Amino acid sequence: MSAPSLAPITTPSNGTVPTPGNLFTLDNRVFCCYLFWATVLVAKMLLMSLLTALQRFRYKIFPNEEDLFFKNIEVQFDDPHVERVRRAHRNDMENILPYFIMALIYISTNPNQDVACNLFRVASLARIVHTLVYAVYPVPQPSRILAFGTMLLITFYMAAVVALRTLSFI
Amino acid sequence: MSAPSLAPITTPSNGTVPTPGNLFTLDNRVFCCYLFWATVLVAKMLLMSLLTALQRFRYKIFPNEEDLFFKNIEVQFDDPHVERVRRAHRNDMENILPYFIMALIYISTNPNQDVACNLFRVASLARIVHTLVYAVYPVPQPSRILAFGTMLLITFYMAAVVALRTLSFI
Amino acid sequence: MSAPSLAPITTPSNGTVPTPGNLFTLDNRVFCCYLFWATVLVAKMLLMSLLTALQRFRYKIFPNEEDLFFKNIEVQFDDPHVERVRRAHRNDMENILPYFIMALIYISTNPNQDVACNLFRVASLARIVHTLVYAVYPVPQPSRILAFGTMLLITFYMAAVVALRTLSFI
Repeated sequence: MSAPSLAPITTPSNGTVPTPGNLFTLDNRVFCCYLFWATVLVAKMLLMSLLTALQRFRYKIFPNEEDLFFKNIEVQFDDPHVERVRRAHRNDMENILPYFIMALIYISTNPNQDVACNLFRVASLARIVHTLVYAVYPVPQPSRILAFGTMLLITFYMAAVVALRTLSFI
Repeated sequence: MSAPSLAPITTPSNGTVPTPGNLFTLDNRVFCCYLFWATVLVAKMLLMSLLTALQRFRYKIFPNEEDLFFKNIEVQFDDPHVERVRRAHRNDMENILPYFIMALIYISTNPNQDVACNLFRVASLARIVHTLVYAVYPVPQPSRILAFGTMLLITFYMAAVVALRTLSFI
Repeated sequence: MSAPSLAPITTPSNGTVPTPGNLFTLDNRVFCCYLFWATVLVAKMLLMSLLTALQRFRYKIFPNEEDLFFKNIEVQFDDPHVERVRRAHRNDMENILPYFIMALIYISTNPNQDVACNLFRVASLARIVHTLVYAVYPVPQPSRILAFGTMLLITFYMAAVVALRTLSFI
């Protein structure tokens, strides 16, 4: 199963030791762990759309003429309840979407399995906390900054690993 | 190099049928179908930028000092024609970008080919409809909600498949 | 099923050279080049978050009650210095995130190595220029339009290559 992934690797491939043939399969524990937690984050992000919709119906705030589902209301923006969820959602896009790509390509460097899996777990849980303290139940700082910074640092770490490994292909 | 990909696999799979080593090649019909429809959606998203630019020039609404291509105009925000396209574009980012990752990793579970290909087709066509009824020619609800919900449900379905398959790697 | 991955491919490919079984490994120079430049762009995008934070602290503009780190200030939006960085960041999301997926799947078509690597380099450098002339030091047009258009055209080119190659899977 993970036999190929156990083979030692000597940097950017151009030596004698073969890189494991394919790390993007269900045989690779790191990839499986990525699959699970990326899926959790995708679901979490999609729930932000539904949370926005919930707030819109709750406070009757709609941005388009064709969305005025209630009588005697007009299009309206800048409602603080709706905008808070939208800011949290935008922050998700700014951070989680680049993370998806970064973590995926980080797998191709065949990282230590425990390190990689734990990075995926911590980063994902941090973003769930971020949503809770930002959009669901606002909490004093620095809770949100810490949750935000956790995935940010993990993504930067992965970026450093990949960039150093592939620097000769600049 | 692709030798290990021929070995049968015993792990999280559902028993007897071996998962093929590498599903991310042009030999895999599901991957090819993903490639085509992901490409269509990428092109569709990029066209939103051009549609926004078109609206900006048409109504002479520019958000930066350096963009004032006409005489006697000032930076301006909140024009309904421009903002409608921008909302549609943001909705694309919120939904299509997570879908790209979700559908890509869903392929690694080696789903039924017909099911997977049809999901890609329906989800992509739904988002094209979403753009048409939101940004191009506004149409009464629930047309947009249905188009929005179609990709949302498909992405949630893929998430469920992947999460159940990789649950042991939590 | 993975046997055919060793067989030569006859479709739109460029003739005699067989497609390798797996192009998403560190053995593939094109993939390594993608890794490096995608990593650069991920880091660049994350720095936009930090640049926004920097502007928020510099001009004391915060969008949430819990972010009011200074005395006697209120939540505030629409500060031009902050909004400029946020527009640049949003433009990154609109363009770089679809590019990440498009360039990744473009690799699966086994493109000419020099062409592909140079496309990755030019597109990435163009977006770095885009950030500099938009968010760091505003410069008269058409500098930003050219930087924006460069990645846009490269992404459309890749989309055309992939779509033509996989057209039969529509």
